[in-house]
Amino acid sequence: MRYEELTIEGRNAVAEAFRSGKTIDRLFVLEGNREGAMNNILKEAKKQNAVVSFVKKERLDQMSATGKHQGVIAYAAAYEYAEVSDLLAIAREKGEAPFLILLDGIEDPHNLGAIIRTANLAGAHGVIIPKRRAAGLTATVAKTSAGALNYTPVAKVTNLVQTMEELKKEGLWFVCADMDGEVMYRQNLIGPIGLVIGNEGEGVSRLVREKCDYITSIPMKGEIDSLNASVAAGVLMYEIVRQRLGK
Amino acid sequence: MRYEELTIEGRNAVAEAFRSGKTIDRLFVLEGNREGAMNNILKEAKKQNAVVSFVKKERLDQMSATGKHQGVIAYAAAYEYAEVSDLLAIAREKGEAPFLILLDGIEDPHNLGAIIRTANLAGAHGVIIPKRRAAGLTATVAKTSAGALNYTPVAKVTNLVQTMEELKKEGLWFVCADMDGEVMYRQNLIGPIGLVIGNEGEGVSRLVREKCDYITSIPMKGEIDSLNASVAAGVLMYEIVRQRLGK
Repeated sequence: MRYEELTIEGRNAVAEAFRSGKTIDRLFVLEGNREGAMNNILKEAKKQNAVVSFVKKERLDQMSATGKHQGVIAYAAAYEYAEVSDLLAIAREKGEAPFLILLDGIEDPHNLGAIIRTANLAGAHGVIIPKRRAAGLTATVAKTSAGALNYTPVAKVTNLVQTMEELKKEGLWFVCADMDGEVMYRQNLIGPIGLVIGNEGEGVSRLVREKCDYITSIPMKGEIDSLNASVAAGVLMYEIVRQRLGK
Repeated sequence: MRYEELTIEGRNAVAEAFRSGKTIDRLFVLEGNREGAMNNILKEAKKQNAVVSFVKKERLDQMSATGKHQGVIAYAAAYEYAEVSDLLAIAREKGEAPFLILLDGIEDPHNLGAIIRTANLAGAHGVIIPKRRAAGLTATVAKTSAGALNYTPVAKVTNLVQTMEELKKEGLWFVCADMDGEVMYRQNLIGPIGLVIGNEGEGVSRLVREKCDYITSIPMKGEIDSLNASVAAGVLMYEIVRQRLGK
């Protein structure tokens, strides 16, 4: 397994993490702290497109494991992210129509891990997650993925809508799940496809939904509102598997 | 929600819990502690078929939240269990062929909660769990079920194999999932059915498997071994939904 330490504390350690090319998911910096060494760290963060939050000292103290954060704490990715083009290359190598999973803001690392696990077994070529308001590749995700993170690449993008536009040029079309969509058994889910899974609480965001070519729905008989996000993702991925197998 | 406190500590509190008819899932008793008040508690536990573990003082001290366990700690069910006959009655009322989910030792309460949630939405009439080596209806399960526990009944049985035998007399047949089964899309999953989901690590136990009429399998393309138990349960339940809908 390619686990690494996740939390990096202190100016030198964080600067070194950037220098060594480690992927930093999020940076927490003491409010008003922009001079000298911190300024360089912020420049690196900008280059890497890391999400930077300026927070109060109390917050940093609370987050700190060592008590020596020196005004900066970074969350590093436990795993390396892939590029979207890598995902398409894998499909090409296998001679298969691309089958990608796009997660529009999955926040629970257990759900993210379970979805990567299912993506691996359903034969998807990779998972795309947005940078903001989403779980990154933490150790919990790696563990919940049951090893799938070693095989199924995950790409992190700044703007999911823009990525969808680019992928449409590559011939992909997109389907997202929502209550008012066509029942999945009746929807044609064959061909180069991107399956969009929405956030646990709020579902698919408006802009992403508008970019989807089709809305599909899982039939629901019960009294409650919605499936767990990783279960819904699994049910939808396997409907795609079924249709691809021609059953 | 029908939440309740889960851990009951001390002789009086535990005795009172039994008197009030509360369902006790497990009882932890100090080794060698069988006289007087404890003896009555143990008799009640036997009547209720609660699982009793005799443990060392250190274990009780560690489990205790109050520090005043007096040699006994009980885990009560957060929800009331149903009887297997209640599940069949629900199917009858709805005029549907019974569709039950049997969990052969699901240990993770998050999985149990997610499975109850999916069972509700897939239109299953209830979930059956065994008494031993399985998660009971704790507050975590209730929460993860997203309210489904208020609608979808869960029955707890002493012996899953015996329950399957009784249900066969009611016309049910049983399918469990395993690698070497017939691919689920080709298996006939219509009619009065009990879907058996195995333990997270070890799958379906030998005796339960032998009682299954059919072994079915979820097609798997990836490098890793198996789906998350609640995802696998979801994929299988929805294959049953699809076939029942005649798609």
